[in-house]
Amino acid sequence: MPEHHSHVASTPGFWAVVPAGGAGTRLWPLSRARRPKFLLDVTGSGRSMLQDTLARLEPLCEDRRIVVTGRVHEHAVRAQLPDLGARGLIAEPQPRDSMAAIGLAAAVIARHDPHAIVGSFAADHVIGDEDAFRSAVREAIAVAATGRLVTIGITPTDAATGYGYIRQGESAGVPAAPHAFEVASFKEKPDQATATEYIAAGGYFWNAGMFVVKARVLLDLLSRYHPHLADGVRRIAADESVTEVVWAGLPRISIDHAVAEPAARDGQVAVVIGDFPWDDVGDFAALATQAPVHEPSGMRKLGQVDGMIAQDADGLVVSRSNRMVAVLGVHDVVIVDTPDALLVMSRDRAQELKSVVDALSAAGRPDLT
Amino acid sequence: MPEHHSHVASTPGFWAVVPAGGAGTRLWPLSRARRPKFLLDVTGSGRSMLQDTLARLEPLCEDRRIVVTGRVHEHAVRAQLPDLGARGLIAEPQPRDSMAAIGLAAAVIARHDPHAIVGSFAADHVIGDEDAFRSAVREAIAVAATGRLVTIGITPTDAATGYGYIRQGESAGVPAAPHAFEVASFKEKPDQATATEYIAAGGYFWNAGMFVVKARVLLDLLSRYHPHLADGVRRIAADESVTEVVWAGLPRISIDHAVAEPAARDGQVAVVIGDFPWDDVGDFAALATQAPVHEPSGMRKLGQVDGMIAQDADGLVVSRSNRMVAVLGVHDVVIVDTPDALLVMSRDRAQELKSVVDALSAAGRPDLT
Repeated sequence: MPEHHSHVASTPGFWAVVPAGGAGTRLWPLSRARRPKFLLDVTGSGRSMLQDTLARLEPLCEDRRIVVTGRVHEHAVRAQLPDLGARGLIAEPQPRDSMAAIGLAAAVIARHDPHAIVGSFAADHVIGDEDAFRSAVREAIAVAATGRLVTIGITPTDAATGYGYIRQGESAGVPAAPHAFEVASFKEKPDQATATEYIAAGGYFWNAGMFVVKARVLLDLLSRYHPHLADGVRRIAADESVTEVVWAGLPRISIDHAVAEPAARDGQVAVVIGDFPWDDVGDFAALATQAPVHEPSGMRKLGQVDGMIAQDADGLVVSRSNRMVAVLGVHDVVIVDTPDALLVMSRDRAQELKSVVDALSAAGRPDLT
Repeated sequence: MPEHHSHVASTPGFWAVVPAGGAGTRLWPLSRARRPKFLLDVTGSGRSMLQDTLARLEPLCEDRRIVVTGRVHEHAVRAQLPDLGARGLIAEPQPRDSMAAIGLAAAVIARHDPHAIVGSFAADHVIGDEDAFRSAVREAIAVAATGRLVTIGITPTDAATGYGYIRQGESAGVPAAPHAFEVASFKEKPDQATATEYIAAGGYFWNAGMFVVKARVLLDLLSRYHPHLADGVRRIAADESVTEVVWAGLPRISIDHAVAEPAARDGQVAVVIGDFPWDDVGDFAALATQAPVHEPSGMRKLGQVDGMIAQDADGLVVSRSNRMVAVLGVHDVVIVDTPDALLVMSRDRAQELKSVVDALSAAGRPDLT
């Protein structure tokens, strides 16, 4: 059983699981079905979100990490992460949501290391303070060692309606984890009034979909709530040759709905309060807050930083072509310039972008989606 | 001396002069220094503005037409108008504004045909009713035959401040030209209050820069007001080999300032009232009113008409690349998509576009201007 370690050491027995899926329709035309968000450098860091995610976890897990991604993305993922090795990637025949992905990884890891603690972290989130992030994960590992399912709650910066919330309960009573509490309940994405109440009341945190738990505890919880799913991932982990047949029969369900919410009702879930900048970059409005500022215009800009003239304008320009982009007198605009498609959108319509992608499909242009 | 002809016949002795110059900076990046407005199809007619201009004049002048353009554009003009012939094009060593261009053409024509009447018409204006246009020109020819300088005044559709105005005087008393009047005065581009007064008062017409006059009358007027310029164009017309030296010494002055305004003060200018849609397409706001409507979005669109998705958006999209353009929730926007430069602009800033082109030059990108 792992003990609590210092903030610079790796954490033996800890495995990182990185589900890498989702098309990111609300980042079209930057992201496409064949070039999803996690493969992109959306922040100008010089690395993709997937690469950033793995680099952020490496001090904790060293080479104990598994990326779970769709078969169609396996080649691209391996190209970005050439050191993954055979063991470091699980290719899903089809998407089956996060429970099947994380459950299978946990089942595979449990066969290697029956005492392993796994932590799952999406491949397409942005985290601003990596030391604070890893400190929270270390506390979560210490709590997971006591047998609980542990999530990391993000201290909210505003009354966001795009995230689920976690309501904090009593202290978890783990000395090595001073920021750990019982989870009183998970809350679905709230309306604006409810979100505002949460922030005013305090004790509510964003659910960032990060879970840390002993692999065997996760599989036991899954057996309790979804025995068919638990049986399926165990069978695939024991005999890879059954993957095709078994995987296709697994239900599509998120880890939140499958185990976190029922286990919280059963008093088995803890939350570690993380106080670090976090964003799931769900749309261009979010990306506009992450992208670097272009001087002297003050526009946010991703891509070729010299090829822009902006006068009396603000918003976000994403440039993936070699063209000059000139912006004059438009505000709160999102301009995404790619070799085969151009998007010009009002920033406050960022959530509605899916309707454009739907229209492209309807117009017989699935090649662009 | 030509008589008034029917509306279907050519008008013998009438020569069309088409000055083709001006970069059209306010249509950047559609127009460039090397690809000026007159060479472009800005209305989706399938022909350039220059080609449209010549086609519109052909029923009047047949092959009696001269395009006056810069040497840098000679190749492109001949490519668009392969039937021009040697006589049909005068190449200016450098721009010297409209008086030198039209004056030289008149001097050349007068040597061919001492009784010629010349009409000058810019190569980059849009005219909506060609029959009405030619009818007005025929009246102007009839008046010019009496020895006057004749301009065509456009019936205003609003209190535009971007054009000069012509104030109408008494009837010109030419039976074949019922819409011809003396010019009381030319008015510079007015401010909004003054333009509104003009429209309320009536008797004011837009100065579209169209002039019809006997070639020898024009040269005589030029000799009176600008003898150096008159002498210069006559010398070049008599001996092409002196062009280089003489042209460089000619003053830059418009035909309005050089002869129309002083001749009006001397009572020698008439105006024919033209009642046809006319636009000089001076900027993208003007172009937005000329471009075809894209259904079902209602956006104005020039270029590839299928490659657009527009939702809750209005404005103008000019597409000169093969890319899909998607527009969501932006209004009064101008989007100009070319292979090497993209412009996104608020329509009401159309007049300020020159500042973007200036910024490009300052940024060391004259290749894009």
